[in-house]
Amino acid sequence: MKLLRYGIAGEETPGVQLEDGTKIDVSAFGEDFNEDFFGDGGIERLENWLKINQEKCEKIADDVRLGPPLTRPSKLVCVGLNYAKHAAEGGMAVPKEPVLFFKATSAIVGPNDDVIIPKGSKKTDWEVELAIVIGKKASYVSEENAFDHIAGYVLHNDYSERAFQIEKEGQWCKGKGCDTFAPLGPFIATKDEIENPNNLNLWLKLNGEKIQDSSTSDFIFNVQQVVSYISQFMTLLPGDVISTGTPSGVGLGFKPPKYLKPGDVVELGIEGLGKSQQTAKAYKE
Amino acid sequence: MKLLRYGIAGEETPGVQLEDGTKIDVSAFGEDFNEDFFGDGGIERLENWLKINQEKCEKIADDVRLGPPLTRPSKLVCVGLNYAKHAAEGGMAVPKEPVLFFKATSAIVGPNDDVIIPKGSKKTDWEVELAIVIGKKASYVSEENAFDHIAGYVLHNDYSERAFQIEKEGQWCKGKGCDTFAPLGPFIATKDEIENPNNLNLWLKLNGEKIQDSSTSDFIFNVQQVVSYISQFMTLLPGDVISTGTPSGVGLGFKPPKYLKPGDVVELGIEGLGKSQQTAKAYKE
Repeated sequence: MKLLRYGIAGEETPGVQLEDGTKIDVSAFGEDFNEDFFGDGGIERLENWLKINQEKCEKIADDVRLGPPLTRPSKLVCVGLNYAKHAAEGGMAVPKEPVLFFKATSAIVGPNDDVIIPKGSKKTDWEVELAIVIGKKASYVSEENAFDHIAGYVLHNDYSERAFQIEKEGQWCKGKGCDTFAPLGPFIATKDEIENPNNLNLWLKLNGEKIQDSSTSDFIFNVQQVVSYISQFMTLLPGDVISTGTPSGVGLGFKPPKYLKPGDVVELGIEGLGKSQQTAKAYKE
Repeated sequence: MKLLRYGIAGEETPGVQLEDGTKIDVSAFGEDFNEDFFGDGGIERLENWLKINQEKCEKIADDVRLGPPLTRPSKLVCVGLNYAKHAAEGGMAVPKEPVLFFKATSAIVGPNDDVIIPKGSKKTDWEVELAIVIGKKASYVSEENAFDHIAGYVLHNDYSERAFQIEKEGQWCKGKGCDTFAPLGPFIATKDEIENPNNLNLWLKLNGEKIQDSSTSDFIFNVQQVVSYISQFMTLLPGDVISTGTPSGVGLGFKPPKYLKPGDVVELGIEGLGKSQQTAKAYKE
């Protein structure tokens, strides 16, 4: 099943994308895609509800705004440097264990919303990533059991302001959590839809030119290792999002580096998870 | 006004501590201390409600469990190394601008709950801190206007696993967001109660011995600077919590270092914000 949310920012309504691509409104189901939904059998409940009610659901117009396909998670945890070539392009060593950081959840927006270049930013960069949505509380979970704790997968662009991230004092969070820096979607594919999350093609185009083009088969740490690893340090809650890192081809890695300027168009996609598109805009008061 | 929440973990009910120390239940007010409450005039609404209804409110027994005095915030942002002596004891340089990191909000517990030493931890450490509760959305806020965006203040113990934080690959978040690592409370003091948050004594005792004893007048970056600074990188939402860093006297700074073992008792307090106490327990499956 493909879960989505649509409508005005902050007032989104749940929907489902059918196999033929039609999008239908499921607000009559009476639940949003939140912690309770993911943690308490919501996916199965919605599947059963659709068996009876699908015909009655209204179609969603193709030009409607998509929102993030879930409500604000308790956390958005990211893995850094999880593809060997990307670590090299950033001049970083290949890590021996996953590098973790948080993005502020206030950065989450819809898949096709504009990306706002922050005030004073000169180094806003892109990162196509496979993100995992947690389906069951996870604390000290083994790699063998990790998939039991996953609800599905979603496309994520982990926008990063490199000067804020790397050139300022301390930790990376200054350059990772700016508003609009975490477009999620178009939809969450429930895990039954994705045969092997560790073997998906992913790509990103800047103004039509493909500059990231890789496969999650190049992960240093795969999906089950990442979920298990993070759960050793904190409890993952249903609806939490884990972003698994980006392959090579980010702006920082070009010689000279390339960064976003107003009007640039970023398109990205992952096999089975659809695609998204953001237009860069300058911050306005 | 002093806001608190009490009862079973995850099912807390709002209350208020009166000037004479009596705690009363305000569940009949009909709101919890969450983003909507802080962002939409809840403090003033509750004050007005109490003028009429205070007499009817039931007293809360003294032995009842206190929970965190607000619902789960969208983020718990922390300032590192914000007292010069603490930076020195950790062998870190005094920062030129605030060092920021996130704690997982799943770490938040009540003020007197046990602190659980994580599996495999040998370096669980304490940090008494003044935390700020945001009262109004803050994006690109000036230092002059920062207080307009503050709802109040709360006592926080920023527990930290030093090996997870510093000796593992990458960022600090592995050692900062373990479950139970963020006891908040006993109460939020609304900002009118605290004449000058940049001049408050704060202290921490380990098994009865005072080992942190300082004042927020020793801040490198004061409350208004911190709020303004963070708001340059991300939007702070009502109910978000900012922890302002700890003075010297943490376990890492002792020679040799001291860390928590099961049975240790940690007490801490800040002038005007009450005190809290945690007993260290070993993790059990």
